[in-house]
Amino acid sequence: MDNVTRREFTKLGALGLAAQAMPAAVAQAQQADARTGYAVIGLGRIADHFLRATRDSKTSRVTGLVSGHRDKALRIAAEYGVPESAVYSYEDMDRMKDNQQIQAVYVALPNSMHAEYTLRSAKAGKHVLCEKPMAISVAECEAMIGACKAANVKLMIAYRCQYDPLHLKAIQLIRDGNIGTLNVIQGAFGGPQPVGEWRITKKLGGGGSLMDLGIYPLNASRYLAGEEPVEFKAFTSTNDHDGRFNEVEENITWTMRFPSGVLANCTSSYGAHMPGYFKVAGSKGWIEMAPAYNYDGMRLRASYRNADGHSEEIDETSPDKDPIEFVRQMDHFTTCIRQNQTPHTPGEEGLRDMEHMKAIYKSAGIDIL
Amino acid sequence: MDNVTRREFTKLGALGLAAQAMPAAVAQAQQADARTGYAVIGLGRIADHFLRATRDSKTSRVTGLVSGHRDKALRIAAEYGVPESAVYSYEDMDRMKDNQQIQAVYVALPNSMHAEYTLRSAKAGKHVLCEKPMAISVAECEAMIGACKAANVKLMIAYRCQYDPLHLKAIQLIRDGNIGTLNVIQGAFGGPQPVGEWRITKKLGGGGSLMDLGIYPLNASRYLAGEEPVEFKAFTSTNDHDGRFNEVEENITWTMRFPSGVLANCTSSYGAHMPGYFKVAGSKGWIEMAPAYNYDGMRLRASYRNADGHSEEIDETSPDKDPIEFVRQMDHFTTCIRQNQTPHTPGEEGLRDMEHMKAIYKSAGIDIL
Repeated sequence: MDNVTRREFTKLGALGLAAQAMPAAVAQAQQADARTGYAVIGLGRIADHFLRATRDSKTSRVTGLVSGHRDKALRIAAEYGVPESAVYSYEDMDRMKDNQQIQAVYVALPNSMHAEYTLRSAKAGKHVLCEKPMAISVAECEAMIGACKAANVKLMIAYRCQYDPLHLKAIQLIRDGNIGTLNVIQGAFGGPQPVGEWRITKKLGGGGSLMDLGIYPLNASRYLAGEEPVEFKAFTSTNDHDGRFNEVEENITWTMRFPSGVLANCTSSYGAHMPGYFKVAGSKGWIEMAPAYNYDGMRLRASYRNADGHSEEIDETSPDKDPIEFVRQMDHFTTCIRQNQTPHTPGEEGLRDMEHMKAIYKSAGIDIL
Repeated sequence: MDNVTRREFTKLGALGLAAQAMPAAVAQAQQADARTGYAVIGLGRIADHFLRATRDSKTSRVTGLVSGHRDKALRIAAEYGVPESAVYSYEDMDRMKDNQQIQAVYVALPNSMHAEYTLRSAKAGKHVLCEKPMAISVAECEAMIGACKAANVKLMIAYRCQYDPLHLKAIQLIRDGNIGTLNVIQGAFGGPQPVGEWRITKKLGGGGSLMDLGIYPLNASRYLAGEEPVEFKAFTSTNDHDGRFNEVEENITWTMRFPSGVLANCTSSYGAHMPGYFKVAGSKGWIEMAPAYNYDGMRLRASYRNADGHSEEIDETSPDKDPIEFVRQMDHFTTCIRQNQTPHTPGEEGLRDMEHMKAIYKSAGIDIL
């Protein structure tokens, strides 16, 4: 068993044998592994994307799991070669401070738990990659930034689209001046939420569709414009009166003004089918991504005149392979940890969105966040 | 020459011979023609679409032209078989009251001239099909409605999209409940305007991009929602400081609320390349048209679950043949004239858009219209 390779181990793991049968081999394989170890906190859908992405990462691996469902956690631990000793409950996860195989955590919990688990992870000396929205209030975001600074650990918000090649290409096309003076950005993201979904509770979601889906076109507008919006006007509405939206808004539309004069129009919904997209319109052309916020199959189109005055047309679809941006995201954070650099999307990036969302809600007459 | 057919005449007309060579034949051919006769007032780009559409109409024809460019008007008169005696200048067009071959006019002038020429046409006893925007103020729209009523002539605003088969199909899909509860409508239309364009002058255009391009997604939002918006929030901006936008706004974004809770986000621009589109999102699916406001090649897509719970996908492109909706528009108005019916898009439809645009501008801090 001593010379079991990671690949062989993973195969055994998939059969559900590894965690029980080979603790010694596990420990040895993991200690020999130079990749940075992450503990995944919360094992829902988004965590699954992160976990699968570790298979394609040369820099990062999973070395711990935190869950309230131990059976599920043990099954996943076996699959990814995580030793049973590194499977924690929410109550005892502070013990991970003694686990040297865990250098960082990935917080994939409901929104309202982001702050608490970021603070506890920082206290345990772990770097924190936290899902968006960063938390459910400006004060929480500020506390998270402060706690990570005090503990001397990195904090990054998982804005995966900012690590996606097609989104980055869109940004570059704009920065290179291809579509001329930027005038208007539009975007939306929406999808019906089922009864019982934590996102539609004020307690766990913190707000309505803006928090979890509207944040995509909001964040995209900011990185496409390359500046911060300064004024907001919004409406909210709830049209499906089936009990799902007693606590949070179903729909929200807002328009915002940037200092340069760029205007943006964005929309999100927890009731309507609204495939995510963005459109950028400039004096020399336009760029559109639709779908823009899926896990795969994103499509970038652009039409503009190049420096020679010739028409350029772009039409690219991202490979139908799930975790590209998850891999790039974790590789980036791992690099920041190793080289002591500030992440491209630090806590301050999440704080800014929270401040903007607070202003958007306020314009719609809702005083939260 | 007596038995010259209309087709033969048109051929001769195209050679520039008809108007001079055959006044007797012209008069005879026209008197035998049962189609309703229109005088086209203003011979710009949109008039050309109307003129070409008369070739495909079984109900309507061109029997008069009003222009400040007599040479151009005579050339077009020859092409369409209009007698030289029915080619008027702006100064002497009131003489058309004595021309029994002209039952209606098509007002295709710059926005600020719509009111005056509608009033003069009504006074001459002619029914009025007027381009959108109806005028450049609420007061003008009200005067136009009053004048046509007093003169007992019909007034219709040329909202061509409301006569386009694909737009009508989109409306029907919504009314039939296919996409469930309506939640959000989005739309935009924009295109760079050249220096010297009448649209970018306050005097002729009346306002900026909202007046001529924003009116498309505004009007679409209303006929897609099937109700009137009651609240508006908007921003305007001008980013290209090259003198084109000293008088009117370059960009405008606005969001609006409908009584049912439907929210709409719309945008227009005179500086940016922004292909026209609309998207409608409901609880059971979505509908999108892009391009939506072109003269041809419009594409309707939809995705929803039908009554049986099966997925339905629609993807239809309108024939690459220019004037379908122009033909349907004029045929509708002709039918209304003959059967004494109120048009589907009467003056009141144009007045409502003007009131909404006034409210949108007001929200952006601009007190006009």
